[in-house]
Amino acid sequence: MKVACMCSGRGSNMKSILEAKAAGRIPGAEFRGLICDEEGAGALETAAAFGLPSVTVPFRDFKGDRPAFEGRVLEALRGFGTELVVLAGFQRVLGKTVLGAYPGKVMNIHPALLPSFPGHQVWAKETGYGVKIAGATVHFVDEGVDSGPIILQGAVPVLETDGPDELSARILAVEHRIFPVAVDWVTSGRVTLEGRVSRLKGFGPSEAQAEAVLIWPPLTA
Amino acid sequence: MKVACMCSGRGSNMKSILEAKAAGRIPGAEFRGLICDEEGAGALETAAAFGLPSVTVPFRDFKGDRPAFEGRVLEALRGFGTELVVLAGFQRVLGKTVLGAYPGKVMNIHPALLPSFPGHQVWAKETGYGVKIAGATVHFVDEGVDSGPIILQGAVPVLETDGPDELSARILAVEHRIFPVAVDWVTSGRVTLEGRVSRLKGFGPSEAQAEAVLIWPPLTA
Repeated sequence: MKVACMCSGRGSNMKSILEAKAAGRIPGAEFRGLICDEEGAGALETAAAFGLPSVTVPFRDFKGDRPAFEGRVLEALRGFGTELVVLAGFQRVLGKTVLGAYPGKVMNIHPALLPSFPGHQVWAKETGYGVKIAGATVHFVDEGVDSGPIILQGAVPVLETDGPDELSARILAVEHRIFPVAVDWVTSGRVTLEGRVSRLKGFGPSEAQAEAVLIWPPLTA
Repeated sequence: MKVACMCSGRGSNMKSILEAKAAGRIPGAEFRGLICDEEGAGALETAAAFGLPSVTVPFRDFKGDRPAFEGRVLEALRGFGTELVVLAGFQRVLGKTVLGAYPGKVMNIHPALLPSFPGHQVWAKETGYGVKIAGATVHFVDEGVDSGPIILQGAVPVLETDGPDELSARILAVEHRIFPVAVDWVTSGRVTLEGRVSRLKGFGPSEAQAEAVLIWPPLTA
């Protein structure tokens, strides 16, 4: 499956995916290119280091004309022969132009246990609300904000000493673990949808796995 | 600290708390009584088995007059000398009459990782949405619905085969583990609030604990 990544920043999630690919852990994906909406973003260097071509479509050049921006993004996606779009730290909400061309074929990672805390400034919302467990979610993108079908989630504790930055780092570590695996599952054809509920072919949880639990603060605190 | 429980159903969460008390694990609490809003609820038998007095305040007798219902509940709470109210499967939203008399002194358990899925019919919402990780939350009650400060959370996986009933059972098992501990923490004076964020005195998480994580489906799936 031909994959394009889209990033706005450092591209650390894309890097974790490209490293997994290099290690042979995503055999079903062929990474064709990066589309970046910010000139000079670190993701461009990361892509170059992995030999991945990139196209920059600077959002600000479009002066708020989102359909024109998306049209140019779509052109770049098609230029890469893209079949699956992986949003890896892409900071804009995509609209009908791209989503209509790739229905059910756009994946995103979000730094919260959705449906809690969609949107921006998630870490400050999480620490401000006082949740004890936070996390990350890989999901398909629909036309809402972080509202599409969930593929994979990872939960982490929120420490007493956490501010937004500390929590962000802890969540990012789990993002880097789960996103490459989710991309592998999707590109190997293992993920199907029943309505909006995703299923993973060949996965029958054992009793032992079903007893997995994360409690925070720990009961021995 | 003198504690009254409030239940609407079987009272299995109250039972887990009373068992923990009997085992010496909640030394700071003195359980004074149960208030039940449903005649014939199983919780009444459970209370009797532990020698706990109970008062039934049947909601339906008040024909929708919530202030009158709450007034009677408040009278019963005062009759028990209550200092802390523990809602253990109590199915009604309390209003100003009780909350105003016990500000910051009402605890509840909710079968979701709040702020996801407040309110009723939680398990069907969780399985219908397709979350991969669900859980339970012990929190202080404020005047919103399941919106108060969080004390303790437990996360569990949602299995591919889970319907609402299976998920409910898995969440209930973690409820029974976390609620007695949260009641111990509160009744021993360990829980304080900074704004709406709860803190646990004497708890300094170690690095090892901070690496706790729950990922679902498992990465080896």
